[in-house]
Amino acid sequence: MNSFGRLFRLTTFGESHGPAVGAVVDGCPAGVALAGAAIQAALDRRRPGQSALTSARRETDQVEILSGIYEGRTLGTPIAAFVRNRDARPADYDTVTPHDRPGHADAVWRERYKHRDPRGGGRTSGRETVGRVIGGAVAEALLARELPSATIVGWVSSVGAIAAAEPPAALRRADVDRHPTRCPDEAVADAMAAAIIDAKSRGDSLGGSVDLRIGGLPVGLGEPVFGKLKARLADAAAGVGTVSGVTWGPANLPEALRVPGSVFHRSASSYGGIQGGLSNGEPICLRVFLKPPATLGEAALSGRHDPCILPRVVPVLEAMVSLVLADLWLQWRAYPHQG
Amino acid sequence: MNSFGRLFRLTTFGESHGPAVGAVVDGCPAGVALAGAAIQAALDRRRPGQSALTSARRETDQVEILSGIYEGRTLGTPIAAFVRNRDARPADYDTVTPHDRPGHADAVWRERYKHRDPRGGGRTSGRETVGRVIGGAVAEALLARELPSATIVGWVSSVGAIAAAEPPAALRRADVDRHPTRCPDEAVADAMAAAIIDAKSRGDSLGGSVDLRIGGLPVGLGEPVFGKLKARLADAAAGVGTVSGVTWGPANLPEALRVPGSVFHRSASSYGGIQGGLSNGEPICLRVFLKPPATLGEAALSGRHDPCILPRVVPVLEAMVSLVLADLWLQWRAYPHQG
Amino acid sequence: MNSFGRLFRLTTFGESHGPAVGAVVDGCPAGVALAGAAIQAALDRRRPGQSALTSARRETDQVEILSGIYEGRTLGTPIAAFVRNRDARPADYDTVTPHDRPGHADAVWRERYKHRDPRGGGRTSGRETVGRVIGGAVAEALLARELPSATIVGWVSSVGAIAAAEPPAALRRADVDRHPTRCPDEAVADAMAAAIIDAKSRGDSLGGSVDLRIGGLPVGLGEPVFGKLKARLADAAAGVGTVSGVTWGPANLPEALRVPGSVFHRSASSYGGIQGGLSNGEPICLRVFLKPPATLGEAALSGRHDPCILPRVVPVLEAMVSLVLADLWLQWRAYPHQG
Amino acid sequence: MNSFGRLFRLTTFGESHGPAVGAVVDGCPAGVALAGAAIQAALDRRRPGQSALTSARRETDQVEILSGIYEGRTLGTPIAAFVRNRDARPADYDTVTPHDRPGHADAVWRERYKHRDPRGGGRTSGRETVGRVIGGAVAEALLARELPSATIVGWVSSVGAIAAAEPPAALRRADVDRHPTRCPDEAVADAMAAAIIDAKSRGDSLGGSVDLRIGGLPVGLGEPVFGKLKARLADAAAGVGTVSGVTWGPANLPEALRVPGSVFHRSASSYGGIQGGLSNGEPICLRVFLKPPATLGEAALSGRHDPCILPRVVPVLEAMVSLVLADLWLQWRAYPHQG
Repeated sequence: MNSFGRLFRLTTFGESHGPAVGAVVDGCPAGVALAGAAIQAALDRRRPGQSALTSARRETDQVEILSGIYEGRTLGTPIAAFVRNRDARPADYDTVTPHDRPGHADAVWRERYKHRDPRGGGRTSGRETVGRVIGGAVAEALLARELPSATIVGWVSSVGAIAAAEPPAALRRADVDRHPTRCPDEAVADAMAAAIIDAKSRGDSLGGSVDLRIGGLPVGLGEPVFGKLKARLADAAAGVGTVSGVTWGPANLPEALRVPGSVFHRSASSYGGIQGGLSNGEPICLRVFLKPPATLGEAALSGRHDPCILPRVVPVLEAMVSLVLADLWLQWRAYPHQG
Repeated sequence: MNSFGRLFRLTTFGESHGPAVGAVVDGCPAGVALAGAAIQAALDRRRPGQSALTSARRETDQVEILSGIYEGRTLGTPIAAFVRNRDARPADYDTVTPHDRPGHADAVWRERYKHRDPRGGGRTSGRETVGRVIGGAVAEALLARELPSATIVGWVSSVGAIAAAEPPAALRRADVDRHPTRCPDEAVADAMAAAIIDAKSRGDSLGGSVDLRIGGLPVGLGEPVFGKLKARLADAAAGVGTVSGVTWGPANLPEALRVPGSVFHRSASSYGGIQGGLSNGEPICLRVFLKPPATLGEAALSGRHDPCILPRVVPVLEAMVSLVLADLWLQWRAYPHQG
Repeated sequence: MNSFGRLFRLTTFGESHGPAVGAVVDGCPAGVALAGAAIQAALDRRRPGQSALTSARRETDQVEILSGIYEGRTLGTPIAAFVRNRDARPADYDTVTPHDRPGHADAVWRERYKHRDPRGGGRTSGRETVGRVIGGAVAEALLARELPSATIVGWVSSVGAIAAAEPPAALRRADVDRHPTRCPDEAVADAMAAAIIDAKSRGDSLGGSVDLRIGGLPVGLGEPVFGKLKARLADAAAGVGTVSGVTWGPANLPEALRVPGSVFHRSASSYGGIQGGLSNGEPICLRVFLKPPATLGEAALSGRHDPCILPRVVPVLEAMVSLVLADLWLQWRAYPHQG
Repeated sequence: MNSFGRLFRLTTFGESHGPAVGAVVDGCPAGVALAGAAIQAALDRRRPGQSALTSARRETDQVEILSGIYEGRTLGTPIAAFVRNRDARPADYDTVTPHDRPGHADAVWRERYKHRDPRGGGRTSGRETVGRVIGGAVAEALLARELPSATIVGWVSSVGAIAAAEPPAALRRADVDRHPTRCPDEAVADAMAAAIIDAKSRGDSLGGSVDLRIGGLPVGLGEPVFGKLKARLADAAAGVGTVSGVTWGPANLPEALRVPGSVFHRSASSYGGIQGGLSNGEPICLRVFLKPPATLGEAALSGRHDPCILPRVVPVLEAMVSLVLADLWLQWRAYPHQG
């Protein structure tokens, strides 16, 4: 299904080369301050064509809001919004579509649906994330009112073998957005950019990792059994296209387990903000690993694909986290917490 | 909430030191061959007290089936089953319960529910997994009839810094169960056992990783957007107590990203059996990282806690995977796949 | 599926002649005062064998609670409870089970599940309502704390062609329970009882109606589109075995539409407490029509079936209404109602 | 929430006087023949301004499809479609909006959402049913392929005190649509039309009933406990604005219970096509009672409101029934029916 969340529920729709992509957000309370400009700004952060590092496609991505907002506030009714696919240019994709694109899900998709959407990967395209970013913008508007202490900041922590140092605790999104790699460690960011441009010139692509720091949560968000906060975050992150792993708690956990002679010890900070499935009030650190994008070789050289998807994934992952938090916040409100 | 799955839905209940723990499975089709003995056998695999490596608690865990099975076949109605908590011995826990147990979720739980269940961690206890194993046994009975090619085999791939070699492709559960560590690499398994016994003697505990190999799936299982097969598996694994990370695709993914000078490349096998959110017919490899259990020091020395939870987590993770597959299989059946 | 509700969710299990019938309630907040005796008292109200008017079966129906309650308060965890089927006496049913029982769902059930549960109708039996009454008792405990003004009172408003007068506004359950027919209009109740005994002597059975008055609700409970309060109540009532119609608003609505020369007018009270899908603070009146039970003739004479199910349906319908209100109340809490 | 259905799920959005109303259908299988013209034709049947009996508003209601359909077939992805609110003319409503409109949910809505959508009743407006009709058109396309024997035909069976005779078994929608009242009993239909025009001239409005005949279902559709076919239909019908009662089985059930001296007997046909919550293969008869629309007096005289909503409710109820059947059909497919 194409819905995410229980009480704060996002449904996305749209094929990458159909008329439009968009979303319906159901379950946002009434009276939340939300301007169309905030949704537009969120979309602008995920859009390609922002630098030499990303796809040359120019998706202007002007959002149109059909319902649920009136005079800058939510009505408590479903918020429907969409973006027309103006820059479809199917000709560009013609070189790859006659056959299944290597590394793409085309063959699997055809087996499942007994057709292959000739329009650029259909729903598996990264363009589907436009709907997620719309949903995330609504979720953040709700969190801004209900949980103003909450912060969600993601950044590119590694590209290929190049890893950034741990950023300062006070890191904000503006700091991250300053560099086109979305890596706040400037020296490392320049090296990453060089590696991405080099890979692009060779028709190659690069994977890496995105770290997300989630702060300012109240104690007790999440569920103790199924729906643990860590399971909701893992599900949210794993639902993004090229994600191939998620760890939480101390960012360096899997590596630590390998260092010869060391025994991984739990310490005050080793719970990574989540205990028994619930937030414990400390910051949460989520590390998300991403495979290199699949389009390669000639197609990558000629086409309009990203040689490294990481910088553009940052706002998508932030949106997914905000959707989880908005949903768990409403769930938290539902249950009276008295003895 | 305490339910898992949409069409094949498990609900677990029971506090670790209340009268019983158990489960209701709703959505299992009628006529599936399922003996109570199969559920019992599954429970026997997760039970502690099987070797020096696990807790000394003796949980006989005799399952009682209340509904849904008649003359060795499912009725198509909810299957309710439970296990009484015979070996509660609350006195043993008295040393830890007056205060919040360090490293446990007691403080978080109290903040959320405005009470702390004095009965051994309540629902956050590993004992809740009895219900999951019951559910997994029902799911495996369904898969045995509907998807007989499907195989789910988990094993302990690392303990602390000790890592096993990749096991042969033909690995079966019986091979894994032969060693109390549930590591099929015998030489490494002995080293793991020694490390666990050593940690136990020092009141310490060890984390590590469990690998799961899922084979024999049809092409197209899963959902393309939300509910991707990888997201469902990540959610399933992350819902288990001490799990702190999940990766899929080539087992060594996160490490590969770090090796200086290497660029992580995608290859034929790098999709790890999942493309565009759907199974592609190849084996899936899931690696699950686990933190060391929290109970430490004096409590660990005197109490009945596991110094290394990994061997006992294997059947729990296998159960979670089988629940995901049973649910996705029914969902797959629901949608006519014709052009 | 066998679950009811979204945030306050009841799952029932058990075949009428299997080992037990019961329920799991998931989503009841922690700290709600709830004694096992309250659940037992609710079950006692639905039990047959209470008078000459109902089945002679003696179901002692002793509830056993497996989880979720500790020292008279809910833990916030799933509440599992069941009743053993002590008085199964399958021999009694032998006269009817070799063939499909006329008027029963046996043939339909067999077509659906490719088997007929030989144990007395399986899940379609009225005995499944034991689980609903358990759920209703938990829901009422929650409402008692959270919405103490809420009242739910049902009574038998007609049996066959015999109709009761509108009872006084102050009607309480104790008033209803005084007469074995559960009709508070005493003169009419005696006539109903005579009609039921007469029908029984002829191996016949009687339908009729139950009215439910729901008072003390806050303004705004329900949902404006799907999940309207009236739709939730209709769904809840229609899910009970022999129910064949539901009306709400002024109790006499359908008849009024028929009276020659009259035009049904809306008036202050004609909304019946629900407007735009939401409660408007006024009392709600729900009228539920029931078909005569299906077991007839010889089987009815010899067996242990109810010639008129109406008195025993009253607590079941009250339970269903309380489940709807508990669920909508949690949903109401979830959404901040500010401008 | 604004979603309906589990596997075949409709989400509607849009305020009556916002930019648009529409729907997303999630869960329709791929490859179903569905032309935009079929959706448009369904919308044309519900649109006002078709005769002197309905509102003078001219809603051209041109549907725009954003996703999920390609070259006349569904893609298996969400189908998003909407209709712009071209004929909003807010001035017309100005006479009623400054104050709460008598009989409308305005006061309740304001209490719930702490605002009153000044745009004509927001989501409680009958205009929200545009989304339902879009969903119904998709559901009918699925049923046409999967259950071609299924038929759903509704008609106006009474207006005020004027009741139609039982129509012939072969009744088709075209027969119903021939008369602007959507009553197939022509003599009675003319009397109904006269009564409606008379009521309109007095600023009055009329209620009545719609009957729905559902045929050609396989045995076993529905669920035995919660989600009974009759409960799903009751929920579907009760979710429509002015519906105030639903009965099923023999159409004249509630009246029969009242006829002095008669005892309502069950007979071969008295199950009305549903037994034990499941379809039994016989036709189902659903009778839906509707209150007179709330807008009255001066507002009704000047405004653009329907004096009798019944003819326009017929296609909306048919849509709701088709949504239930499509959803239950997918659910039916999900569960293997073997012994």
